[in-house]
Amino acid sequence: TARALVADLHVADIADLFEVLSSEERRSLARLVADALDPNFLSELEGAAFDDVVKVISPSIIADAVKQLDTDDAVYILEDLNAESQQEVLHALTREDRTALEEGLAFPEDSAGRLMQRHLVAVPEFWSIGQTIDFLRAQEDDQSPNDFYELIVVDPAYRPIGTVPLSRVLSCKRPMRIKDVMNPDPHIMHVTTDQEEVARQFAKYHLISAGVVNDYGRLVGVITVDDIVGVIEDEAQEDILALAGVSEGDVNVSIRDVSRTRFIWLFVNMGTAVLASLVIGLFDATLEAMVALAVLMPIVASMGGNAGTQTMAVAVRALATKELSPANAMRIVNKELIVALINGVGLAIVVGIVGMIWFGDILLSLVLATAMIINMVVAGLSGIMVPMILDRFGVDPAVASSVFVTTITDVVGFFAFLGLAALVLV
Amino acid sequence: TARALVADLHVADIADLFEVLSSEERRSLARLVADALDPNFLSELEGAAFDDVVKVISPSIIADAVKQLDTDDAVYILEDLNAESQQEVLHALTREDRTALEEGLAFPEDSAGRLMQRHLVAVPEFWSIGQTIDFLRAQEDDQSPNDFYELIVVDPAYRPIGTVPLSRVLSCKRPMRIKDVMNPDPHIMHVTTDQEEVARQFAKYHLISAGVVNDYGRLVGVITVDDIVGVIEDEAQEDILALAGVSEGDVNVSIRDVSRTRFIWLFVNMGTAVLASLVIGLFDATLEAMVALAVLMPIVASMGGNAGTQTMAVAVRALATKELSPANAMRIVNKELIVALINGVGLAIVVGIVGMIWFGDILLSLVLATAMIINMVVAGLSGIMVPMILDRFGVDPAVASSVFVTTITDVVGFFAFLGLAALVLV
Ligand SMILES: [Mg+2]
Ligand SMILES: [Mg+2]
Ligand SMILES: [Mg+2]
Ligand SMILES: [Mg+2]
Ligand SMILES: [Mg+2]
Ligand SMILES: [Mg+2]
Ligand SMILES: [Mg+2]
Ligand SMILES: [Mg+2]
Ligand SMILES: [Mg+2]
Ligand SMILES: [Mg+2]
Ligand SMILES: [Mg+2]
Ligand SMILES: [Mg+2]
Ligand SMILES: [Mg+2]
Repeated sequence: TARALVADLHVADIADLFEVLSSEERRSLARLVADALDPNFLSELEGAAFDDVVKVISPSIIADAVKQLDTDDAVYILEDLNAESQQEVLHALTREDRTALEEGLAFPEDSAGRLMQRHLVAVPEFWSIGQTIDFLRAQEDDQSPNDFYELIVVDPAYRPIGTVPLSRVLSCKRPMRIKDVMNPDPHIMHVTTDQEEVARQFAKYHLISAGVVNDYGRLVGVITVDDIVGVIEDEAQEDILALAGVSEGDVNVSIRDVSRTRFIWLFVNMGTAVLASLVIGLFDATLEAMVALAVLMPIVASMGGNAGTQTMAVAVRALATKELSPANAMRIVNKELIVALINGVGLAIVVGIVGMIWFGDILLSLVLATAMIINMVVAGLSGIMVPMILDRFGVDPAVASSVFVTTITDVVGFFAFLGLAALVLV
Repeated sequence: TARALVADLHVADIADLFEVLSSEERRSLARLVADALDPNFLSELEGAAFDDVVKVISPSIIADAVKQLDTDDAVYILEDLNAESQQEVLHALTREDRTALEEGLAFPEDSAGRLMQRHLVAVPEFWSIGQTIDFLRAQEDDQSPNDFYELIVVDPAYRPIGTVPLSRVLSCKRPMRIKDVMNPDPHIMHVTTDQEEVARQFAKYHLISAGVVNDYGRLVGVITVDDIVGVIEDEAQEDILALAGVSEGDVNVSIRDVSRTRFIWLFVNMGTAVLASLVIGLFDATLEAMVALAVLMPIVASMGGNAGTQTMAVAVRALATKELSPANAMRIVNKELIVALINGVGLAIVVGIVGMIWFGDILLSLVLATAMIINMVVAGLSGIMVPMILDRFGVDPAVASSVFVTTITDVVGFFAFLGLAALVLV
């Protein structure tokens, strides 16, 4: 039966199973197995699958799950409930739990404060290893966090001053002092730091956990790497989809929402396509005089678009990973220019030969080749400059770059080719 | 001075500093600070920066660093040395270390065997917590791995049967048995498993570490999550760049290599652009009769390309994360078709109105609108089907999809618009 099946699977697999079902199937299955589910199930569900399931599960069952979860997973569930269910769930909790979760929800979305687990183990630097182990053994089960990997060492004002990997606690003799085995200068996150920056620091410094502090520098939570793995996936996913003009990649989002968000992007691009057509319209007399121009003109525009997209993708990622910075910007721009020139000349030769074979017109082929070089250089330049300029003005380059780059390469592509043709050929 | 600067910075920051420098600057700085560097420095360097630095550092300095590193980091360094330096470094090691590293290098690139750390702590299930702690305290410093987060529990044949998070070891009383506190059914990787699959399992099951086994199921190493974070970033990066037709995203790759790999992609795309031009060429008489068609035709093709790219990006990511599988393929294809139809009709109305205002020709506007609907539906279908078909045939959809999708939308866009125009207008 469904209940036996669910009891046998890992929660992550049950969540995946729900995610491939249709909306109706999810709701029926959720009704069937609601009271047999692991408390972690809800924190594994994403997007539309989560929304479907919480619609048919009673708030008291959700509250029971939330009580048993780490605060980070509890916040993950609460933040995506509608306001009414959120209140119902919060009121089913003890006042202490409620306050903790309400504080978590008060931090900005996608911030360190939302990601952090509030239950943590902090020790003073003057403790011995033996004292620390005795302290941990004496903890009540429901007061200590589920699993953790490092101790955070704090000063008397509860500011983090170091970390001790648990493997070191286990391999040192009991009389050793914490301060003699700790790693000093811990990497600390502020509660409002964006998760993207948090993830970047985890990746760069190979962190396993990091203390989170409030405005006074006091330790209020800890973020562990297992929760960061998901963030890194989400952020890279966001960039891939943003570059393609999609704001939401969940295959489970409703048709209405998908159509709407994609339409907006297509509508904006329609504006740029019409702009390119206006440029072509400038040359209608030229086109009338020589129809071969109409046949060949999309090649110049589309190759510019491809080359611009290549450079842009590299630039967007290099900006996201901070490999591209003011320190090396000039060098990278120069390099992209040289690459654009080399490939522009290469493609110009190829396209010139194609034009010669096809139309047997040497002047037409020269115009085509020259326009290709011009557009390739413009593509390279705009592919690197547009993301850098957007980034400088605080606009996410992954989202906005491609409209600008393809508009530029289309407009310049058509203008260079038809303009040269008007001058030389007609 | 440079040496003082380097002594003060975190190795990851020193590596980043090297990465923004030019090739010549890297070599001079590396020569200056070579003997003052942290052994971890080399394992932080990526791509061209690594190649530059190892060219000027003597193999004996590299060997000294390798000796002090975890085996996974040592393999990371060795695999990217040229054959000659690799041999020199290996011969500077003890026979035991050399054998371990040679075994690591024998596994396929990007496999679990390359990522794993060989020094690990495995315990039998019948041990008590107290016995385990005493064992860990008795370890010689150079025999135990640097830091670790879980114990792996093995049976007498050294096959992994469970894991114990160190926090649990620390919070249990000494007489407790390992078998009573371990997590059973551990997630195990085979030495030849691809790193992408390893990363997917870490992300899905929130793993902190995972045992790696050989063909006989014997535990031979362990992979920890801090090394997986980098893999996840690399793999997502690979997909972003592949979709844009770039095979290498390192901003530090040489101009020659960048030009060559990008040129190949542009050359392939040139083929598809010429194909689209051939389609236009079929209608040269039609174009001659009505030059407005040449002005408007890129709109249909380019909107199809944009819509196809949207769907394709979603499909490529959904395949990579296994959100799209045979189980829900039909449902997703249906959904994309409906979205394509809705947005196709929407854009057709907009473009029809634009056509009316611009050329005042109702028949022309109807042809434009109809071609738009046709191409949008084809774009949606090919955006989802092309990646799925490539995936079925074992081709990476991130690399190959976009050539096919944009070729289809270009060809169909021009053919539908000009074909309808030839039938109805001319
Ligand atoms: Mg999942
Ligand atoms: Mg979580
Ligand atoms: Mg959330
Ligand atoms: Mg957590
Ligand atoms: Mg981002
Ligand atoms: Mg973000
Ligand atoms: Mg295009
Ligand atoms: Mg780095
Ligand atoms: Mg490493
Ligand atoms: Mg490598
Ligand atoms: Mg490691
Ligand atoms: Mg891949
Ligand atoms: Mg790969």
